[in-house]
Amino acid sequence: MLKKLLVANRGEIAVRIIRAAQDLGIATVAVYSAADAESLHVQLADEAVNIGPPAAKKSYLNVEAILKAARDTGCDSVHPGYGFLAENAAFSDAVTGAALVFVGPSGDAIRMMGDKVSARSAAAAAGVPVVPGSAGRVEGLEAGHEVLTATGFPVMIKAAAGGGGRGIRIANSLAEFEQAFPQAEAEALAAFGDGGLYMEKVIGKARHIEVQVLADGSDAIHCYERECSLQRRRQKVWEEAPSRALSARLREELCASAVALAKAVKYSGAGTVEYLYDDEADRFYFIEMNTRIQVEHPVTEAITGIDLVAEMLRIAGGEKLRIRQGDVSVKGHAIEVRLNAEDPAKEFAPFPGQVAGLRIPGGPGVRFDSMLYQGYQVPPFYDSLLAKLIVHAETREAAIVRLIRALNELKIDGLKTTKPLFLALAADPAVRAGDVHTRWLEGWLIENAAALAG
Amino acid sequence: MLKKLLVANRGEIAVRIIRAAQDLGIATVAVYSAADAESLHVQLADEAVNIGPPAAKKSYLNVEAILKAARDTGCDSVHPGYGFLAENAAFSDAVTGAALVFVGPSGDAIRMMGDKVSARSAAAAAGVPVVPGSAGRVEGLEAGHEVLTATGFPVMIKAAAGGGGRGIRIANSLAEFEQAFPQAEAEALAAFGDGGLYMEKVIGKARHIEVQVLADGSDAIHCYERECSLQRRRQKVWEEAPSRALSARLREELCASAVALAKAVKYSGAGTVEYLYDDEADRFYFIEMNTRIQVEHPVTEAITGIDLVAEMLRIAGGEKLRIRQGDVSVKGHAIEVRLNAEDPAKEFAPFPGQVAGLRIPGGPGVRFDSMLYQGYQVPPFYDSLLAKLIVHAETREAAIVRLIRALNELKIDGLKTTKPLFLALAADPAVRAGDVHTRWLEGWLIENAAALAG
Repeated sequence: MLKKLLVANRGEIAVRIIRAAQDLGIATVAVYSAADAESLHVQLADEAVNIGPPAAKKSYLNVEAILKAARDTGCDSVHPGYGFLAENAAFSDAVTGAALVFVGPSGDAIRMMGDKVSARSAAAAAGVPVVPGSAGRVEGLEAGHEVLTATGFPVMIKAAAGGGGRGIRIANSLAEFEQAFPQAEAEALAAFGDGGLYMEKVIGKARHIEVQVLADGSDAIHCYERECSLQRRRQKVWEEAPSRALSARLREELCASAVALAKAVKYSGAGTVEYLYDDEADRFYFIEMNTRIQVEHPVTEAITGIDLVAEMLRIAGGEKLRIRQGDVSVKGHAIEVRLNAEDPAKEFAPFPGQVAGLRIPGGPGVRFDSMLYQGYQVPPFYDSLLAKLIVHAETREAAIVRLIRALNELKIDGLKTTKPLFLALAADPAVRAGDVHTRWLEGWLIENAAALAG
Repeated sequence: MLKKLLVANRGEIAVRIIRAAQDLGIATVAVYSAADAESLHVQLADEAVNIGPPAAKKSYLNVEAILKAARDTGCDSVHPGYGFLAENAAFSDAVTGAALVFVGPSGDAIRMMGDKVSARSAAAAAGVPVVPGSAGRVEGLEAGHEVLTATGFPVMIKAAAGGGGRGIRIANSLAEFEQAFPQAEAEALAAFGDGGLYMEKVIGKARHIEVQVLADGSDAIHCYERECSLQRRRQKVWEEAPSRALSARLREELCASAVALAKAVKYSGAGTVEYLYDDEADRFYFIEMNTRIQVEHPVTEAITGIDLVAEMLRIAGGEKLRIRQGDVSVKGHAIEVRLNAEDPAKEFAPFPGQVAGLRIPGGPGVRFDSMLYQGYQVPPFYDSLLAKLIVHAETREAAIVRLIRALNELKIDGLKTTKPLFLALAADPAVRAGDVHTRWLEGWLIENAAALAG
């Protein structure tokens, strides 16, 4: 078992990791930027080290400062959380190189999944359905023409080294394709220093469904799926588990494919295999694998009763997987919404400031993961996530009613938050019916702009 | 289903009931005394009615004012919570007489269980083991002599109309008995206007174990047991589920006996059948049945996933029991501690005042049921319960570690609370081993007075 853990993150996920470590009797060290000295993660950790000024580059992305803090405080391990250095292969290598345990997969595994082309190849090799497209990098326009027979139009041209939605072009015809391909090549080279491209069929209306896996380097299990189709600018805002769109047969196939991939790459730790699910064709396609704990992990914890962060820490400490696939069962339905310090009435403009009053919802089936406290000053330097409200109930319908109840209980005075968005979504017939896809929310936001502004 | 519920209570249980009602789409009306105008239950309810001055007799015990509030707001039902009017048979009758639904059993059922002698008789008739003693009232000293052959010494002489520990005498010999009996008779007459007595064997070291039942007037199920052996002045301070003292066979017997009693008296609603369990003799004895929701119900909710207050509301609304016995299963271990506004360093003297700062613990497996918010003024007029901290984990050991973690997270500034007591208990070897009985804590408090005072 690990003895002392440095938590290389901030905000709610740092708090979450500190809680899991303390629940296992592991001592904790928080790191913080000058902007976060009064943060809850600093208060809850056993020790805390200032690692630099507010700018993330000089603090939460400062590998040297983080490793020094770990050495100075006698840590034996580092948890990266999500964001910042969590999917930075070099950081994983650096932690391991400093004779510390990295709570997550090896640098090689992060690297393989971080490169979209090699991730796609690994998935295909493990028998996981991928979006029809190129087998690997598309070497030139002529090779691209051949790929078109598999994809048809519209087709996506993506930078192999890209990410976060950058470096993507869509072509609707051969003429557009022939124009777009060299442009994409030049752009990729300029943006990522790597002109490599790959191509994928455009899946029209699709759901985002992802499978949580836990693995110990040799064995792997899944903890069923989450559906995260409600997205704004490719950012998830509302996640739930299980997905009601899947048949039992397809759920089994989907989860088995995620386990197959995790085993094929000898994955270790918690990971998420993401898919697009095409309702009409009743088919799913691999998108990517996230090699870290995800923001939305609590919905899986709610329905399975598994403490995913605690399992990560056990695995990193050298334990073999102690949960068998047959022991993982699903109870009820869970929903998470992300309360951001943003003004939904003003195109979600960030709204940092001081929490003048705070009323946290409670009761059975309600969990509130947050770094907020009354008087806390939300700094303007980082992402705008304030809290995750997670509800769990017998059925999806009951979970939505409980979500509305808990949102009404929640009061965050002094800030604008995304709470009104979720109250409106929870009342929407399409959301109630679960009849959504990954582009649905963008359209809904345009239609409901006036209501949100009021 | 009920449409509009008046919650005839205050504090955390009023908040709890309002949440359950809102989760079921039932409108809520809070009632409050002048001392509670700023209370959380008033804020969370859809409507609120001032029913009188601070003194409970003139507000929370004021049947007329409560019924008027229900009529004036168009309620169809009343939930009494616990304490105040919850086990007042006349109140149940009055609510029903006003053509409202009482969320709980009939006045007759409350009356039968409220009278210790008739409760004991009902239990014995249902085949539930009772403490060896008199079959009913003991009519005179001579009849008492006969009962002694069943009880031996020491023996308890109790007022049939007594309660809350009043009107009890213990005799260790025949001489003491012959002196005590007439004295007890005279005292009972003076105190309760009823000189009726009954007798029970004194059970030495025993655990307090109770079974949660749900019943709909014809069918009944149990939701397993809770152990509440850690008591101070007969008040529970730490409750858990399941009890680790029971064998599987005894658990089955105990739970079956509670269901048999509930069925025998055609019980309706949520109830708790309380027992003493004698470890050494491996026998259990009925003590009494509480005909209401109990303070410690959340530990049962944690391990079974059943929302007990929601089930009460469904049953009161006319639904038949929808949970079958075979569907009730136990997962993990849960512990609840009662955070009171009391100073453990000063013999638990009440400590009302203002909550200057509040940090609520969170994360997976942690529930905090409370009416507290930062700035809240705890009034001096009512019981001192501020909050219930409930933790749930895979094992009892893990639950205790999580309890310590959550207690350390919890900060209630401005008041003295019982938090230090629970941190000390959680570290105590006997508590860790579960090696306690109902009188254990009293002894521990004497031994550890200095540590608590420090």
